[in-house]
Amino acid sequence: MHDFKKHLTISGLFAAALLLSLSCMVRHADLSDPLPSWNEGATKKAIIDFVTAVTTEGTPSWVAPEDRVATFDNDGTLWAEKPLVQGMFVRHIAGEQVDNIAPEELEHEMLKLFVTAQSGMTLSEYHRAVADFFANATTPSGKTMSQLRYRPQLELLDYLRDNGFTIYICSGGTVDFIRVISEEYYGVPSERVIGTEFEYTFDYSLNDFVRSPRIHSFNDKAQKPVSIQYHIGKRPILACGNVGGAGDIDMLRFSRGNAYPSLQLIVNHDDAEREFFYGEENNESLNRAAEHGWCVVSIKNDWKEVFTDE
Amino acid sequence: MHDFKKHLTISGLFAAALLLSLSCMVRHADLSDPLPSWNEGATKKAIIDFVTAVTTEGTPSWVAPEDRVATFDNDGTLWAEKPLVQGMFVRHIAGEQVDNIAPEELEHEMLKLFVTAQSGMTLSEYHRAVADFFANATTPSGKTMSQLRYRPQLELLDYLRDNGFTIYICSGGTVDFIRVISEEYYGVPSERVIGTEFEYTFDYSLNDFVRSPRIHSFNDKAQKPVSIQYHIGKRPILACGNVGGAGDIDMLRFSRGNAYPSLQLIVNHDDAEREFFYGEENNESLNRAAEHGWCVVSIKNDWKEVFTDE
Repeated sequence: MHDFKKHLTISGLFAAALLLSLSCMVRHADLSDPLPSWNEGATKKAIIDFVTAVTTEGTPSWVAPEDRVATFDNDGTLWAEKPLVQGMFVRHIAGEQVDNIAPEELEHEMLKLFVTAQSGMTLSEYHRAVADFFANATTPSGKTMSQLRYRPQLELLDYLRDNGFTIYICSGGTVDFIRVISEEYYGVPSERVIGTEFEYTFDYSLNDFVRSPRIHSFNDKAQKPVSIQYHIGKRPILACGNVGGAGDIDMLRFSRGNAYPSLQLIVNHDDAEREFFYGEENNESLNRAAEHGWCVVSIKNDWKEVFTDE
Repeated sequence: MHDFKKHLTISGLFAAALLLSLSCMVRHADLSDPLPSWNEGATKKAIIDFVTAVTTEGTPSWVAPEDRVATFDNDGTLWAEKPLVQGMFVRHIAGEQVDNIAPEELEHEMLKLFVTAQSGMTLSEYHRAVADFFANATTPSGKTMSQLRYRPQLELLDYLRDNGFTIYICSGGTVDFIRVISEEYYGVPSERVIGTEFEYTFDYSLNDFVRSPRIHSFNDKAQKPVSIQYHIGKRPILACGNVGGAGDIDMLRFSRGNAYPSLQLIVNHDDAEREFFYGEENNESLNRAAEHGWCVVSIKNDWKEVFTDE
């Protein structure tokens, strides 16, 4: 009996040790590749080295969790921007008006429609229209809006959160538009979405805001650092934008000036096959990246997969 | 030996039971009075009943932690407002200019000074001036700024946080002014301070914002719900303001319209002996409180102690 018991115990210990070592291996695999959709290379290494540096206690590069603020642009940075999702939404709610615009007036009239079609309604009505759009809309190629998200970026958001970062979206898109899906799509709660703000009035008889056809704050370019300061009061140690409209240069420069160690990422749309190939006329964002030492994320070379299929 | 061991075990169990019951008593005392500086009465009961209701799972009144948003005014709500702390600061940095104002022009000129004295400098310079003020300033009666805080309100903030609430300050004061002390004075981090915003430009050669002498958003009255929506995107289930300038009526009405159970508190300065006695000319805040069912906090009757001595 005793021998049998002893045998059992040893078997048990062995099994436990085996389980432990297996679980360590799994855990080790997780730790060694927190970004499985990113190809090995300088960009992935820069991200992991940076996160390791700011989270290693007792080193000069350590940053306290409350200062691990990361800001991400949305269009072209977290999801594809061709066609622009909020542009599709405006077409969705103002269909006939768009169809009736003469081709030579389209661009100018679309800007006007962007404001008028998204105002003159209560905030609840607006939220319902946005939710309806996200539930039903597809791109010309049949993708849902959710499938426009970049898988490597979703991994990056998780990786940063796992390392004590607080993630904010800082987008030129309308704050009320993005908030409808920010939690579900990105795990970012409404209070961490910074975007373009329409003027409101609060109507007590409706118990709701009414959206006015005026912009309170257009959150692009030089406004991004200002909005971040108003909203957070801290400078991001990681900022991520994209090449396209030169809209993120100020946010990245603002981050770069941080007294703490910081990392700036700029997504370059250089993959005609899997996503798109576009730059800027004067190449400004990439020139600034070279000038200021930002890390250029090449969709073609740095991303193993581009889109999530969820 | 065996009996001795048994005795030891029983003694041990008895000691453990005694410790447990003592700790339960202590714990019970904590739970039964989370607000020791509040007198027993309808107001304290309303607060505790509300917090109990929204935190009791499985009941219709339960509110998920992410929606337990509380917004507090600052001047006259979390600390005394006579004299106005930020007014003292403006005098502190613009001393000579204030002394040279003719008495009949004082009010009008002080408003202009409020803007000019707090602009035309970098944000870092402004922060240093504010920090210097808080480190050195005293009221005419010799109190530090820290001692102007209301002890019962500090207990209320802690009590709400202990129950999963997220606390925001929503003040007419300048956001950059309050953020210097919000964490130390109230445990509220910079990203949860909503206040009046000055326009900035970011100066890359200075690597800093320069404060412009223009207001981007004056966070009082009807602007408070709008700023809360911009900043949080959720309606507070608890809002607390004060009688004085009728500045919190909109915030409280906004909170009252919440689809969730909600509580509105309005501090009434009715204690000439321990604090101040002042109302509003047309009694608007108290009339609205009666009309909408807000809970009036009487400093005289509801607060056992008024100020913290820390």
